[in-house]
Amino acid sequence: MSDPVPAPTLLRQLKWRYAVKKFDPSRQIPADLWGALEDALVLSPSSFGLQPWKFFVVNNPELRKKLQPAAWNQSQITEASRLVVFAVKKDLNAADVRRFIERTAEVQGVAAESLAGYQKIMEGSLASRSTADVHHWAARQAYIALGNFMTAAALLGVDVCPMEGFDPAKFDDILGLAPKGYAAVVAATAGYRAAADKHAQAPKVRYPKDQVIENLD
Amino acid sequence: MSDPVPAPTLLRQLKWRYAVKKFDPSRQIPADLWGALEDALVLSPSSFGLQPWKFFVVNNPELRKKLQPAAWNQSQITEASRLVVFAVKKDLNAADVRRFIERTAEVQGVAAESLAGYQKIMEGSLASRSTADVHHWAARQAYIALGNFMTAAALLGVDVCPMEGFDPAKFDDILGLAPKGYAAVVAATAGYRAAADKHAQAPKVRYPKDQVIENLD
Repeated sequence: MSDPVPAPTLLRQLKWRYAVKKFDPSRQIPADLWGALEDALVLSPSSFGLQPWKFFVVNNPELRKKLQPAAWNQSQITEASRLVVFAVKKDLNAADVRRFIERTAEVQGVAAESLAGYQKIMEGSLASRSTADVHHWAARQAYIALGNFMTAAALLGVDVCPMEGFDPAKFDDILGLAPKGYAAVVAATAGYRAAADKHAQAPKVRYPKDQVIENLD
Repeated sequence: MSDPVPAPTLLRQLKWRYAVKKFDPSRQIPADLWGALEDALVLSPSSFGLQPWKFFVVNNPELRKKLQPAAWNQSQITEASRLVVFAVKKDLNAADVRRFIERTAEVQGVAAESLAGYQKIMEGSLASRSTADVHHWAARQAYIALGNFMTAAALLGVDVCPMEGFDPAKFDDILGLAPKGYAAVVAATAGYRAAADKHAQAPKVRYPKDQVIENLD
């Protein structure tokens, strides 16, 4: 396959994106575009393909208002078209591996038993880590999904503000995530930048390439 | 801005990608395309924009051969066109914040003093975390870069295999990262899939959308 998207288009969109501070509350993401972004979330890569996550899309305005004080009262929480809370499965364990193996067997049309070796490797990987480390590992996977989501949105011309500045325990509580077995790790709001967001005009700050990429030749 | 990349193109490329197990060792990524992927890495978003990372591109074949046993002898390490080790700054602290503030002042043409408030917030955020938690936080940022890299590569038609299956301490040692102040957290190989990689034909396994995305209406 050769060059499905020209490199200049990719780079133009990555330069166009920034962490939007002020969304235009009157502009909603069209349903088909949001559907594509949901599909992109579903397609996010993860270690082993295990997908140790769930993406909660908070549409209820009352819920969003309740979340706001737990997120430094940031306006994006209520004004962006969409709010996605990236949550990871709590206490990831052999049952989650089994569920994934069964899904794999279903999708690939093979017997679950034929995947026993792969199952053992994943179980071993989880068992070798403490509960805290399994959570850290799952959270890292969620950040892959976040990275994928931000880049996908930029390519579609949708604005995103990634958000770490919130109290995960309060988000879990307000959204009722714990009884569902999930814990919030990071969030993202999506929509369209307000014309008045002065951050849109600020030059993007990155270190020079030679300070960020080192070739070991 | 409207629809710079059509959604079907994005989704087609995300479905096309998979974690390549066997690269074609005879195919190299053309220099201009690799340059664009390096630019995409540089443009990766991070919390505060702090970029607590460095991307080590291992080109030396002897180094790659040395890394291989520390990565379960996976063939990608030596056969892929490129190997990127995503490393985070060790013991991230106020000096790193200062460096970033100085870079921001330079890029945006403002006095560093005018950014003192922002500087304080970042310093406070780091100071509120234990050394271990700062490392976890920095590692999560590196996974954003990984997610961005994988999606960017997929859009350009370049194959990637993300790799957690290696001994980070051994990688640090072999590549001499510790004296440079960095620690490896994850890696990715990039190039082109071998025709013989049967994983390319396997249907992609994802949970159904309604199991991964939950709307809170």
